[in-house]
Amino acid sequence: MIGKQLFLTSPAVIAGALVDGRENYLTLGGCGGLSLTPPLLYITLNKSHYTNSGIKENGYFSVNLPSTDMTVKTDYVGLVSGRDTDKSAVFTSFYGDIKKAPMIEECTVNILCKIYKTIDLPHNEVFIGEVEETYVNADCLDSKVPDMKKINPMILAAGKYWGLGDIVGVAFKDGRALIKN
Amino acid sequence: MIGKQLFLTSPAVIAGALVDGRENYLTLGGCGGLSLTPPLLYITLNKSHYTNSGIKENGYFSVNLPSTDMTVKTDYVGLVSGRDTDKSAVFTSFYGDIKKAPMIEECTVNILCKIYKTIDLPHNEVFIGEVEETYVNADCLDSKVPDMKKINPMILAAGKYWGLGDIVGVAFKDGRALIKN
Repeated sequence: MIGKQLFLTSPAVIAGALVDGRENYLTLGGCGGLSLTPPLLYITLNKSHYTNSGIKENGYFSVNLPSTDMTVKTDYVGLVSGRDTDKSAVFTSFYGDIKKAPMIEECTVNILCKIYKTIDLPHNEVFIGEVEETYVNADCLDSKVPDMKKINPMILAAGKYWGLGDIVGVAFKDGRALIKN
Repeated sequence: MIGKQLFLTSPAVIAGALVDGRENYLTLGGCGGLSLTPPLLYITLNKSHYTNSGIKENGYFSVNLPSTDMTVKTDYVGLVSGRDTDKSAVFTSFYGDIKKAPMIEECTVNILCKIYKTIDLPHNEVFIGEVEETYVNADCLDSKVPDMKKINPMILAAGKYWGLGDIVGVAFKDGRALIKN
């Protein structure tokens, strides 16, 4: 036993929100899917963060997946607070049909979410968002299907950013070998 | 725009619970960290699953990280339901100090969680668990520090299981290059 540690991998994502009318971005590892119907995901933010008020004010946030060539800027927007530093020009912002939260052009995947529910934890606010718009860079599509290797997402684990490795299996298929007829 | 898709990577984890006194395991991708203080994570399960009643009955579940050489068994326990199939012998079960949910010896990391809160969604139950015990295989420790490459976790993305790739950056460090003095 090594104590009471959360020892998981997570996607490295950049959350985007308008805070006082200005684009703000924040890197985090606390993000994941909750439901397919409706399509729900969450981001968790320490209550001290500047971004939270903007998410609540607008009712929307974005989740952007940086690729492995974006480590420096990705880490930077996780290190400095929008309270002291204008982070609006670190990336090229764009808006979808619903102009309630900015998304990042340099990121290969962008997901715009509308707040569905907020969970209050002692030090964190968990924003559950319903997916309203998903964008994948045209370069990352293979016959209109998103190609994970081209998306080239970053994983956060043990304080490091990692790339995605090789395919080791196929879900809902490989296990059939053990089903007895 | 490609519609309203949840396009994220996630850890591939096997949830463990006692259901009617029998060890039961279920693979899922919906798992992630919510808070460090207290240490909270979640798993999300479709309401149709057999495991949910066992988690609620005992108030505990485990999260086990399979390594990339465990794809067939990992996928299998995600394919068949404990309602029809006894999955208790697929893995070697063990218990920690709190004997409320089984963990998997073959997995490199095991996390025992006590239910902290349950979120009811239209088709899913989200179990938020407080981490009570974390185990890492002795083979995966490097001078008592967990070594991610030895843990060798699986990632779920786009219907495939993937290994972890290479380190591409260091969190809370690389971005300092952009901080102006």
